[in-house]
Amino acid sequence: MKRTISLSADAPRNSDILAGEGILEDVLPSIGGYRGGHKTYWIWDKNVRKLWGTRLRHLGWPGDDDARLILFPAFEANKTLSSIEALSRQLVAAGADRDSALVAVGGGVTGDMVGFLASIYMRGIPHFQVPTTLLAQVDSSVGGKTGVDLPDGKNLLGSFHQPAAIWMDPRFLETLPPLEFRQGMAEAIKTAMLGDEALWLFLEEHHDAVLRRETGALLRIVSACCQLKAAVVESDEREAGARRMLNLGHSVGHALEKLSNFRIRHGDAVAAGMSAAAELSLRLGTLSAESASRLRKMCAAWELPTRIPGEFPPEAIIRAMQADKKRIGNVIHFILPVKIGEVADCDNVVTEDLMAVLKSLQGAAR
Amino acid sequence: MKRTISLSADAPRNSDILAGEGILEDVLPSIGGYRGGHKTYWIWDKNVRKLWGTRLRHLGWPGDDDARLILFPAFEANKTLSSIEALSRQLVAAGADRDSALVAVGGGVTGDMVGFLASIYMRGIPHFQVPTTLLAQVDSSVGGKTGVDLPDGKNLLGSFHQPAAIWMDPRFLETLPPLEFRQGMAEAIKTAMLGDEALWLFLEEHHDAVLRRETGALLRIVSACCQLKAAVVESDEREAGARRMLNLGHSVGHALEKLSNFRIRHGDAVAAGMSAAAELSLRLGTLSAESASRLRKMCAAWELPTRIPGEFPPEAIIRAMQADKKRIGNVIHFILPVKIGEVADCDNVVTEDLMAVLKSLQGAAR
Repeated sequence: MKRTISLSADAPRNSDILAGEGILEDVLPSIGGYRGGHKTYWIWDKNVRKLWGTRLRHLGWPGDDDARLILFPAFEANKTLSSIEALSRQLVAAGADRDSALVAVGGGVTGDMVGFLASIYMRGIPHFQVPTTLLAQVDSSVGGKTGVDLPDGKNLLGSFHQPAAIWMDPRFLETLPPLEFRQGMAEAIKTAMLGDEALWLFLEEHHDAVLRRETGALLRIVSACCQLKAAVVESDEREAGARRMLNLGHSVGHALEKLSNFRIRHGDAVAAGMSAAAELSLRLGTLSAESASRLRKMCAAWELPTRIPGEFPPEAIIRAMQADKKRIGNVIHFILPVKIGEVADCDNVVTEDLMAVLKSLQGAAR
Repeated sequence: MKRTISLSADAPRNSDILAGEGILEDVLPSIGGYRGGHKTYWIWDKNVRKLWGTRLRHLGWPGDDDARLILFPAFEANKTLSSIEALSRQLVAAGADRDSALVAVGGGVTGDMVGFLASIYMRGIPHFQVPTTLLAQVDSSVGGKTGVDLPDGKNLLGSFHQPAAIWMDPRFLETLPPLEFRQGMAEAIKTAMLGDEALWLFLEEHHDAVLRRETGALLRIVSACCQLKAAVVESDEREAGARRMLNLGHSVGHALEKLSNFRIRHGDAVAAGMSAAAELSLRLGTLSAESASRLRKMCAAWELPTRIPGEFPPEAIIRAMQADKKRIGNVIHFILPVKIGEVADCDNVVTEDLMAVLKSLQGAAR
């Protein structure tokens, strides 16, 4: 007997991104219009709750006595399957079922975990994101990538699960420590470098306004990053091709995070990874010295690393990259910047070239 | 700013079911034609490996010295996120990447877990199923439901992830202990009861041939069950409606499994649950006494329970059902048999009626 089950395509889906000053006030009035939005369970980063709980309580968001509120210490070290199990059990105890939905309030770790949890809880329920960090607003909350880490590497288990809606309010960024803000700037710089020259020029020209966290400047950055990511995700949701460009700086970046046991933060690691990608492109003759220099200056202006920490042998970095899921076969795969606002997807980088670049970025600074 | 990411529908997918004597010989020659099939990692139930490893080694299946072979003690108690984490780490160590695929060789626990693992490993890779028990061949390997248990209930975390292909060989059933065989018969009886009167008649008329595990009789059962399930899954992959009918006997069944801490096996629990559903339907006037009696006889012929163990108070059974994910709102949702080969989806069963039925099935046997 042969019987083929022919499964029709899923219905098209939408993921709404809403950004603006005061957009938080829209969350409760509009969430009920989404599937599952009438029965929401809120998973908050504990720290964000401390800073924002009282203010958002005034908007009618769940209070500390509400069973639908689950607090979570959102550190990368907690981005594990054990945490997913603990959160699941809290949801069961609180009565969450197949008709419920989750709301993530926090940064990248919270968003990745809640998205993953939503994708597997009772085989999948909807979720919403309220990203509270610059990194989550410009990058991680958009596009539906979810996941947890294994001791062997970041995001090795996960899913593609699009949030039904994402609300981004720049007011959250007021309380963000400079270190955290810088992590987000790394992703914003990455976005400009890989596909938005106008954003790059804006970042060069309005450094001080961004540093002062002026609302207009922040919204300009967040909007541009979301627009670009939205277009890329629309064209290639599951990273079969075009979406890979978003990994600029991430191959070396993930390796550095892993080798440092996550002491090196994601944005810092991506900045160092972008420098490596730029040097590699320079060496291969596909990037001008002037563009490479502008990238270095931009990173330096935000106190982001432009070099590779000397403590990690290049061989170890390359080995860690091999274990990363972005590996395809035995070839080192790299997103290379070719000019400000443009990258190329290069799948045949020779190990020796990368080794030379890593060594040079660990040598004496120019 | 508002930007809606409009995601197009996924492409249609196929899931091939291949059943026949000797079909195992086709696995290796044909698997390479599927995506990921050129780089397979094999996850085997340890016990099946012991019984079948040598024979399948002759067909070129991975040997014990092969890094692509992972053995797993497939008990319900191991169907946990911790096991998923351990298997993931073994896959990472063995070099499985985004271009790999998994092959599950074992029964329902193995299939559920490997399917789930495939759906989240590096955000999703393909998988194949080689079900080795009757229960897995007639039911669990088909349809893409995957998952693991929580201490709070069965399959509370999981996904819909269709196997690219399933190979079913009745020869595996020769080595199946009678207790295991009976578990599968419960699902076959369920399938006949809910939608295949011809299969029901076959089961009534060919009891001895099935008991002797004659290949032709087994293939007849497996094929009929797969055909029915394939049609249901095609019409409602994600259980928004029609697929719920497959849960005949499962509401009470899951509760019994849970309350007995999985001492009561799945098929036995489903059989008891079917009896409860039939009694309920009888009480509501939607099933004839003759049909209810035929169900009792059929279960008895296979030594499947037709009563509810007296040790579990009806209140506890109903509470456990409420915690089960099949609950929708506060109403008890039930699939009721209305005649041999037909069920109805009833979403307003009154607790009192169910209570009375459970009590009567715990009283003195008729």
